[in-house]
Amino acid sequence: MLDMVAFDADDTLWENEVLYSQAKVRFAKLMDGYETPDATKHRLDELEIANISIYGYGIKSFALSMIESAIEISQEKIDGREMAAIISLVREMLTAPVELIDGVRETIAELYETFPLMLITKGDLVEQSRKVRLSGLEDYFHTIEIVAEKSRDVYLQILSRHDLDPRSFLMVGNSRKSDILPVLEIGGQAVYIPQENTWFHEESSDNPTGEENFYQLEEIRQLPGFLKQLMV
Amino acid sequence: MLDMVAFDADDTLWENEVLYSQAKVRFAKLMDGYETPDATKHRLDELEIANISIYGYGIKSFALSMIESAIEISQEKIDGREMAAIISLVREMLTAPVELIDGVRETIAELYETFPLMLITKGDLVEQSRKVRLSGLEDYFHTIEIVAEKSRDVYLQILSRHDLDPRSFLMVGNSRKSDILPVLEIGGQAVYIPQENTWFHEESSDNPTGEENFYQLEEIRQLPGFLKQLMV
Repeated sequence: MLDMVAFDADDTLWENEVLYSQAKVRFAKLMDGYETPDATKHRLDELEIANISIYGYGIKSFALSMIESAIEISQEKIDGREMAAIISLVREMLTAPVELIDGVRETIAELYETFPLMLITKGDLVEQSRKVRLSGLEDYFHTIEIVAEKSRDVYLQILSRHDLDPRSFLMVGNSRKSDILPVLEIGGQAVYIPQENTWFHEESSDNPTGEENFYQLEEIRQLPGFLKQLMV
Repeated sequence: MLDMVAFDADDTLWENEVLYSQAKVRFAKLMDGYETPDATKHRLDELEIANISIYGYGIKSFALSMIESAIEISQEKIDGREMAAIISLVREMLTAPVELIDGVRETIAELYETFPLMLITKGDLVEQSRKVRLSGLEDYFHTIEIVAEKSRDVYLQILSRHDLDPRSFLMVGNSRKSDILPVLEIGGQAVYIPQENTWFHEESSDNPTGEENFYQLEEIRQLPGFLKQLMV
């Protein structure tokens, strides 16, 4: 029995990482008077990870990490015109259209007929709320949870708030680190759908293949058929 | 009967606006080769408000508005050293200690004995979660809600999620715009405790004085006595 089917949002329902990859390419180009593109991207990646504890996730945090990298890489020689180009890159990201991944709309509409659906996404409140609104999927979800981090404890809190038994809770997502491992750890079920563009920070060397309650699909369209089998 | 006493956080439980005012003074000083302090502060205020819909609230949003103002005010002449000073100002704000307002700790501890307490704060998830954690007050609150905006609809959602009747819900805060007016509008009760340092954006020309279910106190210490009277 499944009482709740929960979905990750970024790179599970809609494209996200590709926005960041494209921005990194443009940023590296902007900095190429100071440093090679590879070195710029490498330093930005490092700063992004180092800054998560103070900035959190999302575009505004990424923006501040880009600006810090720019100052550092240019040895404070970055000028106002270059800084303006970074800000305009950030504003483009914040207002980018929401592009659903192939098959998402039909799949969510179909599952909605059978299961209560939940959205659990980590990141910035304003940015994630905007994407939920623009996705056109909002009405399919019984509950939308935007959290700062997807840890074991956060999943436990969400389940307790909604009076859900982990055994009847299933999470679908593209990040082993955020969507799969913590859910398996608390006794839930998890469906991993890898995406080409997953951010390396969301990867994990722990591979739950073969573990109980862990499943892997190639694309979201396979989910309704898979859940039908699972329920037999 | 009161089923829930809810509190705003910034400038109701702990100091917040003073951090922003001090940062604005330092920012204006940093820009004084380009523009007068008053004009700098004025332009930053304007950009902050204009950017809320895209950036939201919080220090990271404020940071991006400062950087935009700096670029604009300096006519793109801002240099890497000045930009580094802005970033360091931002990091100081993000790691500043949480200073409880006088009387808060005792009052919350006392009310906890009688009422279920809730915290409803708007702003950035990471920044607000950090302040809740550092405040030492976390365990007094039955529920902590961090929202993107405190609108009538958001209050209705919170009440419905917790199965609360607006008539038995009381909100305490320093912002007429965010804590008082929307709560009165949905039929709740509201206690306004003005603070010297309230951000002008949180002010409202609508003055609910004399309205039913609206109360005003001078300081939070008066709250337990006031609620005792109210319950008679």
